[in-house]
Amino acid sequence: MHHGVFFKKNGPFSLREVLDYCEIKITDSDKLEKKIFDISTIESLKENCITFLNSPKYKNVSINTNAIACITTLSLQNFLPSSCTKIIVKNVLFTVAKVSKLFYPEADIDQIDRSLQSADKLSHKYPDVKFGKNVLIGENVKIGKNSSIGSNTIIEHDVIIGKHCLIGSDVVIKNTITEDLVYISDGAKLGQKGFGFIPDKTKNFRFPHIGIVYLKKGVEIGTSCTIDRGSITNTSIGENTFLDNQVHIAHNVKIGKNCMIAGQVGIAGSSVVGDNVGIGGQAGISGHLKIGNNVKIGGGSGVIKDIPDNSKVMGYPSVNFRNFIKKLEA
Amino acid sequence: MHHGVFFKKNGPFSLREVLDYCEIKITDSDKLEKKIFDISTIESLKENCITFLNSPKYKNVSINTNAIACITTLSLQNFLPSSCTKIIVKNVLFTVAKVSKLFYPEADIDQIDRSLQSADKLSHKYPDVKFGKNVLIGENVKIGKNSSIGSNTIIEHDVIIGKHCLIGSDVVIKNTITEDLVYISDGAKLGQKGFGFIPDKTKNFRFPHIGIVYLKKGVEIGTSCTIDRGSITNTSIGENTFLDNQVHIAHNVKIGKNCMIAGQVGIAGSSVVGDNVGIGGQAGISGHLKIGNNVKIGGGSGVIKDIPDNSKVMGYPSVNFRNFIKKLEA
Amino acid sequence: MHHGVFFKKNGPFSLREVLDYCEIKITDSDKLEKKIFDISTIESLKENCITFLNSPKYKNVSINTNAIACITTLSLQNFLPSSCTKIIVKNVLFTVAKVSKLFYPEADIDQIDRSLQSADKLSHKYPDVKFGKNVLIGENVKIGKNSSIGSNTIIEHDVIIGKHCLIGSDVVIKNTITEDLVYISDGAKLGQKGFGFIPDKTKNFRFPHIGIVYLKKGVEIGTSCTIDRGSITNTSIGENTFLDNQVHIAHNVKIGKNCMIAGQVGIAGSSVVGDNVGIGGQAGISGHLKIGNNVKIGGGSGVIKDIPDNSKVMGYPSVNFRNFIKKLEA
Repeated sequence: MHHGVFFKKNGPFSLREVLDYCEIKITDSDKLEKKIFDISTIESLKENCITFLNSPKYKNVSINTNAIACITTLSLQNFLPSSCTKIIVKNVLFTVAKVSKLFYPEADIDQIDRSLQSADKLSHKYPDVKFGKNVLIGENVKIGKNSSIGSNTIIEHDVIIGKHCLIGSDVVIKNTITEDLVYISDGAKLGQKGFGFIPDKTKNFRFPHIGIVYLKKGVEIGTSCTIDRGSITNTSIGENTFLDNQVHIAHNVKIGKNCMIAGQVGIAGSSVVGDNVGIGGQAGISGHLKIGNNVKIGGGSGVIKDIPDNSKVMGYPSVNFRNFIKKLEA
Repeated sequence: MHHGVFFKKNGPFSLREVLDYCEIKITDSDKLEKKIFDISTIESLKENCITFLNSPKYKNVSINTNAIACITTLSLQNFLPSSCTKIIVKNVLFTVAKVSKLFYPEADIDQIDRSLQSADKLSHKYPDVKFGKNVLIGENVKIGKNSSIGSNTIIEHDVIIGKHCLIGSDVVIKNTITEDLVYISDGAKLGQKGFGFIPDKTKNFRFPHIGIVYLKKGVEIGTSCTIDRGSITNTSIGENTFLDNQVHIAHNVKIGKNCMIAGQVGIAGSSVVGDNVGIGGQAGISGHLKIGNNVKIGGGSGVIKDIPDNSKVMGYPSVNFRNFIKKLEA
Repeated sequence: MHHGVFFKKNGPFSLREVLDYCEIKITDSDKLEKKIFDISTIESLKENCITFLNSPKYKNVSINTNAIACITTLSLQNFLPSSCTKIIVKNVLFTVAKVSKLFYPEADIDQIDRSLQSADKLSHKYPDVKFGKNVLIGENVKIGKNSSIGSNTIIEHDVIIGKHCLIGSDVVIKNTITEDLVYISDGAKLGQKGFGFIPDKTKNFRFPHIGIVYLKKGVEIGTSCTIDRGSITNTSIGENTFLDNQVHIAHNVKIGKNCMIAGQVGIAGSSVVGDNVGIGGQAGISGHLKIGNNVKIGGGSGVIKDIPDNSKVMGYPSVNFRNFIKKLEA
């Protein structure tokens, strides 16, 4: 996570200040004056943080957490140690969104980057980079040597591009780090905030997106793909994974290495895709799923359940490939 | 409708001139010398207009119309009052297209906007607006205060952007009006002509698109969405409705308030979506449908029928959610 | 094929040099010193070329080929005349990719076009063309008279645009030739390399894309479409065919005339679509299929088999329309 770099960060706040901001009253905690420096998932907890527990899935981790406080529900509070102040709420995500907003007041929407400058004026800073025309580069952008950036492309503040990367034209990259040898084709948009908000009839409350997009070595992103940054973890794509055109990768998705993802595929928020996975064109994967290693998903499939390693599935909703064929022949 | 502002308008023409242009002969009308100022749908008729009737669905309105003339078919002519000159044709839409082309000769295709100027030269006109780099603004564009326009974005002539709006980078907006607090992410394209034409083996006849895109307060448009303007009515999106990335909204679609539309959804021409509707990723809605209020449509569904209020549907083609589950288990 | 114009071409090479580059040993050929000028498909063979045979489908052509050498498999070699040196390999496409890379070292990835210049500086070369703002034009670009090019659009080196064409804003066009009266809406990206590579766990081997995009007279390309250029043949779209928004056309696809392709359709690599074909929104067509003339494909369909002329299909996978309806009612 690199949100401290990409997003303006406030704090620390005392636990009391955090609770006041959320309009929550807790009196029996001895930690009300403790300084809280950040909010974090329970798996990747840093020191002096507030965290949250929204599912029993994480109970093995939560029971040993050293978080100062944890936003959770009545029924999940027993999966937390007594040392942790429990903040019992009905809608965990709403309170997480509010606390994130307190720490990262500008991560819930993508303000325009006013640090952008013409690459023509910055060429002394990037002597080993080839630029097209009208390239715009933000503050503190790092670009590795022998990389090329196509015309009209925008690389916003603090983005890091590896060595030997090739970025096409009309690309917008924000809140993103790439390793070396990454290829991004024309028109792709990376690092925008994801589609996360707490619905409200008057005005939806946008979930701050404090995660980034992380592309490993050799990744290829096709023409006009969209890859949203993470909300509270990162969105990441593994080594040597290739995406075809018009693919949409939602926030917090993690894709393994050596995957092939064909055109117009969509992967919804927080799903995890293993290594060596092949996904046919226009397939869709619902949110919060786990797709195993070496899985093959047929074109047009709609995946709504976890898929174990080495499976081949197809259909809407997707089933084992043999069952799909049987059903067709029935 | 604001087509008189966005599109060059010719006329008025006498009814005789209109008929001559369409190569239609009518002799028994006492209105041949009447001046016609515009073409309009029968529900939103203005004075001194020509209209059209293509379905018995509008008979309650049509029977009382005060249109000078109405393009219709032999079988529908009885739904019109005797005061209205009937123009009987085989293909109503083709004649409507021709008459629209007569009045709006440039609305059938998107000519490049030659009034665009660098926002740098126009900053005195927009003292309370933040601009990124290389922003292009057309003639008579209005932008409300505290709005921001991202880099490389194009806002074409006569567009109106509300207050406190945030428009990303690489956006193109034409023939569009937005209310306040609208958020449009990078790469979205709004107000282009829709996919409407009368097929012809030599050269398709493009339907003039004289409607606009109208976005109400608090609307959010995701990265790389496309929203076509209306052909003869407007395309509109209601208050506090949020669209995820790569959504396509076709011409004349009307979406209510507080809707959530996930990634890669497509809504075909002239469909009407109610309030508080949720649509899962990659779902498609056919044209000319009515989706009720509070409807939930599962991801990947293909909707080919109207859906009553408060329903939950899924499948291709979509059925009631309980039936979808039953069928799966069968 | 125009790859000699668009892509840097090496050679000629002797057959011995080609084989050495591929690390293949052949000793019993009398053609090892013959000069090879290019690689070509077997149907469109030019003189002094190397070709390949990967399917018995082409046996009528292959048996009479005058290619110097042919990359093929053990089982297919009998479909070649004795005059042709057989290069027997396990993975024909991998060797084709390698030989293509030898002849066209830069066609496997889209390098940025460093010849681009502001159209403002080139207006003397295009006296009858209207340009928007910030248009970038590459070397040797030809644009026919009375054509217009929208703002921020990029037309890369050697592209040919016909007369009376209208190209919108934010378009990127490379490796493409269009005839007259072509209309391309905002945000479309044409001529990028396709999604073709030989998977390799360390580093996928990209297939050189030496074909182009060819658009015939009167073609319309909707907003934010992506059309990849061919790998070893061209991608082409026939006269008067219209594409709606967000359509993806993969490499080597050939579409006939007078087709209507609705929004978000995807056509996978090397499929051939006949004339007068209608394809509903979000439908997908798998790779290497043949869709006949006058075929109608319902919205959302997934086509995984060839479709004969005059058929109407729907479903996932698509079946004859009557069977689709029957199954629904069952």
